[in-house]
Amino acid sequence: MNVSESSLMLQLSMFDTAAGAAFLFRELAQMSYDGVGITRESYGSTEQAAIELVKIVARSSGLAVESDAASNFFISLPGTCGDESFVLCGSHLDSVPHGGNYDGAAGVVAGLMCLCRMRHLGIVPRRTIKLVVLRAEESAWFGKPCIGSSALMGQLKKEDFDLKHRLTGKSLSESMSAAGVQIEKLLQAHPLIDPRQIAAYLELHIEQGPVLISKDKPVGIVSGIRGNRRHRRIVCKGEAGHSGAVPQCLRHDAVLATADLLVRLERRSLEMLDLGYDLVVTSGIVNTNPDDQAITRIAGEVTFSLDIRSQSKETLDCFHSWVVEESKIVGIERGVTFEFDAPDLFEPVLLDRGLIETLRKLCERFDLEAPVMASGAGHDAAIFANSGIPSAMIFVRNENGSHNPDEAMELDDFLRATQLLYAALLEVA
Amino acid sequence: MNVSESSLMLQLSMFDTAAGAAFLFRELAQMSYDGVGITRESYGSTEQAAIELVKIVARSSGLAVESDAASNFFISLPGTCGDESFVLCGSHLDSVPHGGNYDGAAGVVAGLMCLCRMRHLGIVPRRTIKLVVLRAEESAWFGKPCIGSSALMGQLKKEDFDLKHRLTGKSLSESMSAAGVQIEKLLQAHPLIDPRQIAAYLELHIEQGPVLISKDKPVGIVSGIRGNRRHRRIVCKGEAGHSGAVPQCLRHDAVLATADLLVRLERRSLEMLDLGYDLVVTSGIVNTNPDDQAITRIAGEVTFSLDIRSQSKETLDCFHSWVVEESKIVGIERGVTFEFDAPDLFEPVLLDRGLIETLRKLCERFDLEAPVMASGAGHDAAIFANSGIPSAMIFVRNENGSHNPDEAMELDDFLRATQLLYAALLEVA
Repeated sequence: MNVSESSLMLQLSMFDTAAGAAFLFRELAQMSYDGVGITRESYGSTEQAAIELVKIVARSSGLAVESDAASNFFISLPGTCGDESFVLCGSHLDSVPHGGNYDGAAGVVAGLMCLCRMRHLGIVPRRTIKLVVLRAEESAWFGKPCIGSSALMGQLKKEDFDLKHRLTGKSLSESMSAAGVQIEKLLQAHPLIDPRQIAAYLELHIEQGPVLISKDKPVGIVSGIRGNRRHRRIVCKGEAGHSGAVPQCLRHDAVLATADLLVRLERRSLEMLDLGYDLVVTSGIVNTNPDDQAITRIAGEVTFSLDIRSQSKETLDCFHSWVVEESKIVGIERGVTFEFDAPDLFEPVLLDRGLIETLRKLCERFDLEAPVMASGAGHDAAIFANSGIPSAMIFVRNENGSHNPDEAMELDDFLRATQLLYAALLEVA
Repeated sequence: MNVSESSLMLQLSMFDTAAGAAFLFRELAQMSYDGVGITRESYGSTEQAAIELVKIVARSSGLAVESDAASNFFISLPGTCGDESFVLCGSHLDSVPHGGNYDGAAGVVAGLMCLCRMRHLGIVPRRTIKLVVLRAEESAWFGKPCIGSSALMGQLKKEDFDLKHRLTGKSLSESMSAAGVQIEKLLQAHPLIDPRQIAAYLELHIEQGPVLISKDKPVGIVSGIRGNRRHRRIVCKGEAGHSGAVPQCLRHDAVLATADLLVRLERRSLEMLDLGYDLVVTSGIVNTNPDDQAITRIAGEVTFSLDIRSQSKETLDCFHSWVVEESKIVGIERGVTFEFDAPDLFEPVLLDRGLIETLRKLCERFDLEAPVMASGAGHDAAIFANSGIPSAMIFVRNENGSHNPDEAMELDDFLRATQLLYAALLEVA
C-alpha cells in the first residue's frame, strides 16, 4: 500500500467534506500512477491497494466492511429494518491501462462520502444503505466487462474463468484466486445476493463523452445504456491493380468502396438523428491489407470495424439491416463485395423510470438543471437492471473522455452529483 | 544456369518463330520460378541467368554481344553505315519478387526475335539495329526504378549507390560490383553512349492495366508515360473518443473525414475525366493508428497515401492543388486537419510524335487497330525520352495486371506486337 496510514488517520474526521474527497482522489492517483496515467488492474494488486484504502476509511468512520465470494467489497450503514431489503450504491475501482483517475473511482468515493456523512450525522435510515466496490468492470484486462457485478448476479459462465489476461496471459481464475475469490462458489452460477433484497441500485459515474461539457451542465441523469450491434471485421474485397495503369472506370477499388459506404452510412445516421432516433455509429478500425498495401497499388482489400449503438433495440436492428443492404448496393455499383463477420449483440438497457423521476425531482429541489441522457458506454448498472433491480445512474461532467490520462472532472461538479446521490439514497431508503 | 544448353542448341534455327518465342518464355519461367511466381532479382543471379540465356541465343544466331560499364547487354545487327547512329530496341529482364514472366522479358524476347529474323533473312539495314537488355528496371529491389538505363544515360547519383537491397540490406554498389559493373566509371555520371548516336529507342512491353483487354485489342501504341504527384503519407488528425459516448455532432472523426475527402476526390476526378483530362488517382494505403485503434474508439488519426497520375503536368499540378484546398474545406467542416508530407514528383513524358505516327501507319498496313494510350507505369523509355532520344513504346494486351504471378499474355498478341516492332525497326533504320 502506497498510502501512509498515519497521515490518513489525521484526516479521518473529514471524509464527508470536499477536502476529504480531494485527498482520497489524490491518494488513489498517487498509488496508481504508472508513469503515463492511472493503472488499476482488474483483480490485480493495484485494484486491491485502492480497495484497501477505501476499507481503511470506512472502518475508521465506523462503517462495517464485508466481502462476497467474488471479492466485491460492501460497506454498510445499517437501517432500522435490517438487511432484508437494502439500497445499494456503487461502482468500480479498476481502470484501463494508462487510464484516468475518475472512471469508476468517482462513484466509489461518492458513495463513501455519502455513508461517512450519514454516519457522521448519526442518520439511521429505514432500509440499510450499502456501498459496493465491484471488481473488474473494465474489459481491457480480460476482454469481458463487469466481471464482479456479473459474478454477484450469478451470471459468470464457465468459459469466462478461462479468459486470458491481455499482458500476462494468466487466466481469470488464477487472478481471481490470488485475490481471494471462491471460484467453486462462482461456478455454481447462483446470485451471491438474492436480487429481490436490493431495493435499488444507484451508480454515480463520470460521463465518458462530451455531452454535459457541450450543454454546460455539471450533472446528468442517465435514461438508459445504449446497446450495440458490433462487427469486429467487415472485409471489402475489390480488385488490386497498378495505380497508374488501370483507368478509373475499370477499377474495383476497395478503399473507395469502403469510403463510399462509410459516407453513406454517416449521412443516413444523421438523417435518423434529425428524426429523433438515438444512434451513434463508429468505424474505429480501417486498414488496407498490410501484406500487400502499396502507394502504387489499388487496394484489393480493406478491413474495417463497425459499432452501431442505440438505446432502442428497433433502431439498432433497423440501422444494422440498412448497412447490410446498402453495402450490397455499393457492391453492385462498384464491383466489390462486403463480407460481414457475425455481429456481437448487446441489448440496450432502460434504467428505472421511478428512480429517474426521483432524481429529476431532487434536481429541481437543488436547482440543478440535469439533462436526461443516454449512456453510450456499458456500466455495472446494466447488470443490475437486467437482473430486475430498479437501477439509476448519475453522470458527472468530465472533459477529454475516459480511458485516458486526461480525464478531467471538476471537484465542484463531483460534489454536486454526490449531493444528488446522497439525497436519492436517503429518499429511496 | 537452369537451361540445358544441349536442348537449346537443337532449337537454334527457330528463334524467329512462334515456337522459338514460346520456348524462350518457358525456359525463362523455369529458371526463375520461386515456388509462387517469377523472381529475377535486379543485379542478382536470377537476372544474370536470364541474360546468359539471351546471350547464348544471340551468339548462336551469329549476333554480336557486348556489355557496357553498367552491365547492360547489347546485341547488334550491323548496318551499312557503321555505329555512328543506330536504332535501339530493348527492355529489362529483372522482375519484382513473386512477379510474372512477361513484364520486361516480353520486350527482350521480341527484340531478340526481330534481330534473329533479320539475321536469318540476311537483312542488312542502313543503320545498325541493337537490342539492349537493361539492368534493374524494377524499383522493388533497391527502391529506385530504371537503374540500368539511368546509368547508361549518366544519370545515377552518388547517393543511389548506397541504396539498400530490400531483403539483404546490401548496398546497390555491392550488388553491382558482384555483377561486374565498373562503379568508378558510373560515378563520373557521364552517358556511357552519346545519346545523339541513338536515332530512336523502341520498347515493347506488356500493358500493366486492363485497357486493351477492355477494348478487345491485342496491341496498343503508347502516347506518353504518366507523371505523378505522390504523397507517401497524409495524416488526418481528428479527435479520439468513446464510440458510444460521443454524439455524432460533437465528433471529429478522422475515419469519416478521410472517407469524405476520398469520395470528393473521386467525384472530382470523374468530372475531369468526363471533360477529357487524363487522370488516375489512387489511395492505396489507408490505416487507422495501429497503436490505439479499437472498435469502440473514434479514430483520432488516419494515415493514407495518394498517387495522382496524368500525362499532363498542368493536370497533375491543378488536381494536386485542388486536393490540398479541398482537404482544408473538409478540415473546416469536420474540425480535423490534413497534414501532407512533401510530395514525390515525377514529370510526365511525351513519347515521340514521329515514331507514334510511324507505328500508326504500320498498324494500318497490318490491319491492326491499335489504340493510342497512356502508360500509367514508368518505363526505361522515359529515361531515353528525357535524354532527348526519340522514343516509342508498343503495348501488348495482358490480363490480370503485372507484378504478380497471374500476368497472362497470349502468344498470338505478342507475335502481332513483335511484327509491328520488326517493321518499325526496319522503317526507322
